[in-house]
Amino acid sequence: MDVADLLTSAGINISVCVVAFSLYSVLRKQPSNACVYFTRRYISETIRHDDPFSLHRFVPSAGWIMQAWRATDEEILEAGGIDAVVFMRIVVLSIRIFIIAAVICVFLVLPVNYYGKDMEHRNFRFESIDVFTIGNVEEGSKWLWAHCLALYIITCAVCVLLYLEYKSITKMRLAYITGSHPNPSHFTVLVRGIPWSQDHSYSKSVESFFSTYYPDTYVDHQMIYRPSTVHKLKKDAKKMYRILRPIETEYVRGDKPCYLCGGTAHTFKLLQNGEDSIRSQTSIDELHPTQIEKECPAAFVFFKNRYAAVVAAQVLQSSNPMLWVTQLAPEPHDVYWSNLGIPYKQVWVRKIVVLLIALAFVFVFLFPVTLVQGLTQPQVLIHWFPQIKEVLKLKFLNRLVTGYLPSVILILFLYTVPPIMMLLSRIEGNVSRSDRKKSACIKILYFTIWNVFFVNVLSGSFINQMSIFSQIKELPMMLAKQVPTQATFFTTYVLSSGWASLAFELLQLFALICNILRRFILRSKKEPTNIALTFPHHTEIPRLLLFGLLGFTLSILAPIILPFLLVYFFLAFLVYRNQILHVYVTKYESAGQFWPIVHNATIFSLVLTQVIAVAVLAMKKSPMASGCTIPLIIISLLFNEYCRKRFSQVFKRNPAQVLIEMDRRDEQWGKEEGIYNRLRSEYCQLAYISRDLTISKDFSVAGPNRQSRTDHNSPQGADENSLKQGTHHIKLQK
Amino acid sequence: MDVADLLTSAGINISVCVVAFSLYSVLRKQPSNACVYFTRRYISETIRHDDPFSLHRFVPSAGWIMQAWRATDEEILEAGGIDAVVFMRIVVLSIRIFIIAAVICVFLVLPVNYYGKDMEHRNFRFESIDVFTIGNVEEGSKWLWAHCLALYIITCAVCVLLYLEYKSITKMRLAYITGSHPNPSHFTVLVRGIPWSQDHSYSKSVESFFSTYYPDTYVDHQMIYRPSTVHKLKKDAKKMYRILRPIETEYVRGDKPCYLCGGTAHTFKLLQNGEDSIRSQTSIDELHPTQIEKECPAAFVFFKNRYAAVVAAQVLQSSNPMLWVTQLAPEPHDVYWSNLGIPYKQVWVRKIVVLLIALAFVFVFLFPVTLVQGLTQPQVLIHWFPQIKEVLKLKFLNRLVTGYLPSVILILFLYTVPPIMMLLSRIEGNVSRSDRKKSACIKILYFTIWNVFFVNVLSGSFINQMSIFSQIKELPMMLAKQVPTQATFFTTYVLSSGWASLAFELLQLFALICNILRRFILRSKKEPTNIALTFPHHTEIPRLLLFGLLGFTLSILAPIILPFLLVYFFLAFLVYRNQILHVYVTKYESAGQFWPIVHNATIFSLVLTQVIAVAVLAMKKSPMASGCTIPLIIISLLFNEYCRKRFSQVFKRNPAQVLIEMDRRDEQWGKEEGIYNRLRSEYCQLAYISRDLTISKDFSVAGPNRQSRTDHNSPQGADENSLKQGTHHIKLQK
Repeated sequence: MDVADLLTSAGINISVCVVAFSLYSVLRKQPSNACVYFTRRYISETIRHDDPFSLHRFVPSAGWIMQAWRATDEEILEAGGIDAVVFMRIVVLSIRIFIIAAVICVFLVLPVNYYGKDMEHRNFRFESIDVFTIGNVEEGSKWLWAHCLALYIITCAVCVLLYLEYKSITKMRLAYITGSHPNPSHFTVLVRGIPWSQDHSYSKSVESFFSTYYPDTYVDHQMIYRPSTVHKLKKDAKKMYRILRPIETEYVRGDKPCYLCGGTAHTFKLLQNGEDSIRSQTSIDELHPTQIEKECPAAFVFFKNRYAAVVAAQVLQSSNPMLWVTQLAPEPHDVYWSNLGIPYKQVWVRKIVVLLIALAFVFVFLFPVTLVQGLTQPQVLIHWFPQIKEVLKLKFLNRLVTGYLPSVILILFLYTVPPIMMLLSRIEGNVSRSDRKKSACIKILYFTIWNVFFVNVLSGSFINQMSIFSQIKELPMMLAKQVPTQATFFTTYVLSSGWASLAFELLQLFALICNILRRFILRSKKEPTNIALTFPHHTEIPRLLLFGLLGFTLSILAPIILPFLLVYFFLAFLVYRNQILHVYVTKYESAGQFWPIVHNATIFSLVLTQVIAVAVLAMKKSPMASGCTIPLIIISLLFNEYCRKRFSQVFKRNPAQVLIEMDRRDEQWGKEEGIYNRLRSEYCQLAYISRDLTISKDFSVAGPNRQSRTDHNSPQGADENSLKQGTHHIKLQK
Repeated sequence: MDVADLLTSAGINISVCVVAFSLYSVLRKQPSNACVYFTRRYISETIRHDDPFSLHRFVPSAGWIMQAWRATDEEILEAGGIDAVVFMRIVVLSIRIFIIAAVICVFLVLPVNYYGKDMEHRNFRFESIDVFTIGNVEEGSKWLWAHCLALYIITCAVCVLLYLEYKSITKMRLAYITGSHPNPSHFTVLVRGIPWSQDHSYSKSVESFFSTYYPDTYVDHQMIYRPSTVHKLKKDAKKMYRILRPIETEYVRGDKPCYLCGGTAHTFKLLQNGEDSIRSQTSIDELHPTQIEKECPAAFVFFKNRYAAVVAAQVLQSSNPMLWVTQLAPEPHDVYWSNLGIPYKQVWVRKIVVLLIALAFVFVFLFPVTLVQGLTQPQVLIHWFPQIKEVLKLKFLNRLVTGYLPSVILILFLYTVPPIMMLLSRIEGNVSRSDRKKSACIKILYFTIWNVFFVNVLSGSFINQMSIFSQIKELPMMLAKQVPTQATFFTTYVLSSGWASLAFELLQLFALICNILRRFILRSKKEPTNIALTFPHHTEIPRLLLFGLLGFTLSILAPIILPFLLVYFFLAFLVYRNQILHVYVTKYESAGQFWPIVHNATIFSLVLTQVIAVAVLAMKKSPMASGCTIPLIIISLLFNEYCRKRFSQVFKRNPAQVLIEMDRRDEQWGKEEGIYNRLRSEYCQLAYISRDLTISKDFSVAGPNRQSRTDHNSPQGADENSLKQGTHHIKLQK
């Protein structure tokens, strides 16, 4: 591939992006698309449909870019929470790192590579891209020190920037914990592995255990019921609601506790006012004699203060570590109810099984990747499909097929990965949505790095993949040989996968098509449901980290990738900011739990780069430069270890000092009582039934405030709706 | 090597053992050797020297064997604590496993191997040992299923026995924690990483931190001072003592608190009675204005009850995880004072550095191993030393040199390893003696398994060792090829290293020679000091585990090793019981912390055996049998994971439930006050000075009860003396 080919590819992608961005700027002005492009406000506020039909609605504009650019960190924090800020920090960090890398590599390394050999340079346009890689430098050249120097500067910059980010994100996390509103999850401990007793129910066991061992701080608890039981109750309640629907709204509302768990469940007041008032006041054991059997051996236990909860969560409770397993509860909206019923004894088996399945999946995925590899070589393609031989003779089509098509196919295959990994993370038994997402994120990250980077570099076939494990010693050498030759593929991958993915992200094609279908084909007048998405950290973080890895490894070997990568990160900055501000909702907060993954992945990329550099320099017969690079590896690993010691604990456990101070402040201000009263209703497994009913009622009665729809039991993050309720009425678009 | 050679080797070793055991039975009857063979009672009781010179003192007897055999588990527990019981359990477990293995392999596998090929068997005496290995079975033979079956039975037996042991040792550990006497370490937390403040001393920081965040349960604290400071004080005190020594004993005794830490330090009462009574009552800051600088950023913090201490130890204290790092304090006699002063920030760097040094040591140790390998081949030996060609022509000497000498040399080299590993574990910064021993145990275990098993199997040279890492896939095949051929070497290794090491252990040669030198050459009349050793778990456990590994891997490949191994374990049972009862003292208790290491190592051995079996069966062209062995690997790994989940936490953290119940019991019985008063003096850094002085006083004044001598700062476990004091007067030997 020569420079002209690359520019063709870049041209195609730039035009795709320009078209997509213009299309977006038009589409977002259509009021009918508000549910697609302004989902966040759409579900929490009433948007006035007072925008008249006018020409400016069909003129592309760059207003959204300016808006995204001007948004402050505070606005991002308010709109998307800490996780969104952390995500944007990853983008900004990448921009910073690659600006430094680009400056050094383009002005220092690129000329060294280009003039590395005594050769006659052709017209720049027809120069092969390989001329810009380290492959063009003569063996034993003293100019190889330039690469070594560049690597030193990049490593130092990365370490300093990473340290500052880790520090600031840790601070942000602590600030979130000490934040203004009391978080019910700080007072609640999730207990699993409650021992079975023939004499009394799980509920009684929990009560007796915690009132014995935590008499001063134990407040109450909330059992978890089998999903099937809850589903049946939900169905019954729905039927009942439909019967009693005509009765006036005021009767339905009320602050009676839910008859199953004691939480507030408005709709059940109706029953009491209606036919059997005894029923709602009886306890669960009296209500259904078989109910005990329907309890799961898991419960939420509420404590008087944060410190007591954190102690109960961090201390080993029982002499059998499989019983009375405690952990701090996830936030109420973060709880993944259907997984709470899984017996704790099963969890470790599930984890192992899922790990094995995920590994198998990673290796089976090789077949599409091999296919893609085949497409980059026209002769392989002609071998498979002899008919297209003539077609490929057209230079433009040839470029398109070899330079662009492979990436597109790879991307399409990659789209199947996140749902599968999400499903696996669900089977694993994670008890919170954020944990499930984090677990999926890690799986997708491994998957991406392996299948996009390593398999492409080591050029495919299953045999090659396997031989890596048997020849670990030769891996650096193999990478050193292969990575520079794959520079072209990765550069086009950044152009196609990177840029195009941002265009897709912006256009929200799937949601848009659904919306158009609904409006113009099905002609449905009903309000769309389940449209609010939470930010897909599990797909976007691995993508950013993959591009980071490509940038690092190619930075000194083939610096030509860096400008394209920088453009990608700049676009990502604008697009993701826009999406966080307008599209995605925040329902729960992992408070920066994704950062340690990012940190580790960046260190991995850095060390891999250094190892490859050592091998490349050794291959180029510059043993001194190669040897001088080795200390960098040690420094990077030590730096990582230091960061792990210094910061990572804060992401796993809440520090006692901070919590005790918060408890004291609450005590001084007399806030405690209010919190206790809220706890039970916050963690009510049945609460969402009432919410569902309230919502459908609100829709049918056409109340002024539209509430969010929630379905706690859905397997995907797709239907996690915001619970934030606002009262502002905003105008859609100026 | 043929059967006759093996029997020669066995004969030599049996005679060595018989001689050694007889010698021992005579030597132990000599009253002058009481300090060598009855150290435990010698240092705690006065032994009557009333045994007259009689003939029976010079007649070998087997009384000690009967005594060791008859001793109950309770006696072992009383004499050596839980760690000794756990150690004996390892031996018993090995005996049980290898009885099962021996029965199956000798009656099922051995005949299959022997008649595996259609061949004429020579006279049994001249049969090569290779005839008894799996190498003698024909390829594709259906008798290979016998090996598969044997492996299944052994695996099941090992899993069941391991599970029962883990369960019972966990129970024992819990029983120890809930044991009768209150353990000061349960009430004490070791705090490191106390932040530096310009305004006040570390001591004030500790006080303000804990009285702020643990106001209800914090009792007091005890700073740790730089060892140099303590040493200077110790020197001053010694000088002072020498001056004031003539003054009467009654004046010296008294329960005045130590002026540095407040602990009880009898000898300082003297000063108060003598010249400057002000000095002993002033606080440390007033005493030395520079004293603050001599405080280390570490302290022992005492709590009102066990639960409070365990909470403070297990909870993350500060938002900076490098500050206020807490852990449950080691037992007072277990504290490794000189390491407490190491700043916490350094510890992780030290750990990494020590890890690297240990790894380097493991690989550098290859040279003596290569030498030993050379010795097993007479031609190599002749190449090195042409002079001995004639000597080697004598058949007996040839057998001795090739069959016996290599092992002896290897053992001698191996004797340098424990002190080096102990030193490394000390540099690592472990804060307790038991942790240091545990860390050394792990290092020695890795070292032994690598250098004795793998390097011998993969036959030496550095290049071969390195190539393993680059060809991991081929490792099982390589092992499958090599292990059966090394059967001879390992069998003689069991005979020489195993049996002889027990004889050495019994004779305590080093101590015996020292004693003889002292008595007959130096003609010293002074009582010997520093003679009490704690049990060397760090050398003995890896040895047992190594023999276990050899037994497992060779069990189905070359079952001829099993009878010799069983004899070794039987002898070990007797010898170690005898030594625990009579020689070693118990000063601190890790309460079974060594068991998880043993468990993991056993599982490793088992899985390695299975992997080798899979490879061997595949090599023997019995793919079905090979495939049927693979599920065993999965079962073993799952079993290990289950045990880890089920038991290992109890060895890391004390369960809250148990501690709370103990606290309540203490409260009911009003024991608490007594405990608080003891805490400070138990953790007094200066206390050992007073003890030292008391001891020398006792010796010079010739008081009736001899107290133990302690030196808390000695680097080796060699000088850790028992503090147990008894009043019985025993007769040395009937």
